[in-house]
Amino acid sequence: MDKIRIGIVGYGNLGKSVEAGVLQNKDMELVAVFSRRGAAGVKTATPGIPVYTLDAVKDMTDKIDVMLLCGGSRTDVPEQGPMVAALYNMVDGFDTHAKIPSYFAEVDALSRKAGKTCVVSSGWDPGMFSISRVYADAILPVGKTYTFWGKGVSQGHSDALRRVPGILDAKQYTIPVEAALEAVRSGSAPELTTREKHKRVCYVVAADSADRASIVEEIKTMPDYFSDYDTEVNFISQEELNRDHAGLPHGGMVISSGTTGLHGENTHTIEYRLRLDSNPDFTANVMLAYARAAFCLNREGNTGAKTVVDIAPAYLSSRSAEELRKDFI
Amino acid sequence: MDKIRIGIVGYGNLGKSVEAGVLQNKDMELVAVFSRRGAAGVKTATPGIPVYTLDAVKDMTDKIDVMLLCGGSRTDVPEQGPMVAALYNMVDGFDTHAKIPSYFAEVDALSRKAGKTCVVSSGWDPGMFSISRVYADAILPVGKTYTFWGKGVSQGHSDALRRVPGILDAKQYTIPVEAALEAVRSGSAPELTTREKHKRVCYVVAADSADRASIVEEIKTMPDYFSDYDTEVNFISQEELNRDHAGLPHGGMVISSGTTGLHGENTHTIEYRLRLDSNPDFTANVMLAYARAAFCLNREGNTGAKTVVDIAPAYLSSRSAEELRKDFI
Repeated sequence: MDKIRIGIVGYGNLGKSVEAGVLQNKDMELVAVFSRRGAAGVKTATPGIPVYTLDAVKDMTDKIDVMLLCGGSRTDVPEQGPMVAALYNMVDGFDTHAKIPSYFAEVDALSRKAGKTCVVSSGWDPGMFSISRVYADAILPVGKTYTFWGKGVSQGHSDALRRVPGILDAKQYTIPVEAALEAVRSGSAPELTTREKHKRVCYVVAADSADRASIVEEIKTMPDYFSDYDTEVNFISQEELNRDHAGLPHGGMVISSGTTGLHGENTHTIEYRLRLDSNPDFTANVMLAYARAAFCLNREGNTGAKTVVDIAPAYLSSRSAEELRKDFI
Repeated sequence: MDKIRIGIVGYGNLGKSVEAGVLQNKDMELVAVFSRRGAAGVKTATPGIPVYTLDAVKDMTDKIDVMLLCGGSRTDVPEQGPMVAALYNMVDGFDTHAKIPSYFAEVDALSRKAGKTCVVSSGWDPGMFSISRVYADAILPVGKTYTFWGKGVSQGHSDALRRVPGILDAKQYTIPVEAALEAVRSGSAPELTTREKHKRVCYVVAADSADRASIVEEIKTMPDYFSDYDTEVNFISQEELNRDHAGLPHGGMVISSGTTGLHGENTHTIEYRLRLDSNPDFTANVMLAYARAAFCLNREGNTGAKTVVDIAPAYLSSRSAEELRKDFI
């Protein structure tokens, strides 16, 4: 059988993880990497993979079955998504929640016109967590769903820390509050404030000359990022940061509870939980499973934009329908 | 909008739970109950629902959109499924794993010919657990998936206990072994025997004249049911059994772990967990969500048999695609 030919647009953490993920999927092969830096600026981990600049994307339509967008959601994906969707089957992890409906509509129109199939906003949140929210809401109509993130590194919050004067380097962990998890798992369906759900723990490398007290003050009062949370600030050395906080672990859980019975006498909880050593690796593997789905849907003539909830689980699998029925149902 | 008209075949625990579940779904209405006992032998919880014998199933094709099979998988569903599939959209919870492929094929042929859509083997296992196994296997190709059941009441094992001479009544709980859960969650992908995964705890009401030691011996050595497990037997009074063990709680978890990275250096775990006060209530609610899916798929002309992994999550929801994208992705 011919392999599914994968292209990667953007060769940062996520692009590198997709490259490694392709090697785990026997029905896929990596054909090319596209990066702003081009071949001169990029050395792939897999030998022999050609690297092109973004200009070359338009020239490979006969060589690539599914393109995976691995740039950032702030500027890269909104710009590249429509361009790629007009030429290729595509998978992205667009995660700017407020803009998903308009981005989806744009990609849908372009891909439909081009006869291509695009999976928008895959990954784990949005992605697997979205699926869990939809299933739980459908199964427990009298219920409530909560999403918790962490323990994990937030890139956005780490970046915000590094913009504080006097901070040389930093890493921020988002951590669910244990009491909130317990309350939700009990089925009591509590009302929870932002502060009650998550806390934020910062590891900060400060300049020798910096005033630590004012750094702490500035972090804890930073609007949007920290002021609504209980925030802990730990000063450590650059060596400690490099040694103990180099990874990008993440995870979280979608927990739903609901009642059933003629008098609401029975309570049920559904929990979908992820513990990830590497946020980009896991995201990449989800995107690759949806690349398989996009490829198969397109072969069936099912074109346009989809989100993860529009795609049946079996499309993600390389196994036959018979094998799934025999061994997985 | 017209409501989805539901029929129930079989009015035991599951049928009663479906009846209660329909009331939670604003887009559904219960039209009729079919039972071997007929109207004289059945009193529904909802006033005004007509009850018919099974003979009447064939006469209601213009009044019912989706029929839910609520009988047992041993004899009822294999007999009723093909009969109903030739006339109605249908949802069942057929759970005799070894026979799912042949049952699926039979229902598929009949429903395709009739232009109907049938969801086979829904519920939670098979059902939501099947979905979790397929997603995890697709996302973590280098990985391993484990299914644990409990803590919960096993009807089959409780029945087996009640067949032991000297036992008047009994309830059996299946319980995952904590050490096995820990090992699996750690990502170590252990090999586990049947005994290492689950233990069995029995609450037994014995006749006054019975020899308790020989009852314990007979239980612990019973092949298939108990001999492969560590089994605990507790003698209690009928009053205690009625008071403390009247419910049908269940649950369990599908836990997958896998590695990623060029050198398998990152480990991930995915856990889908259910804690259910009432096994039949939860099963019923899953079946109702798939009744909605069967109805919608049929309207789109997508006929034949499906399992839960063949159906996109959005079909289970009463919400619009726009609402799902805006609030759930």
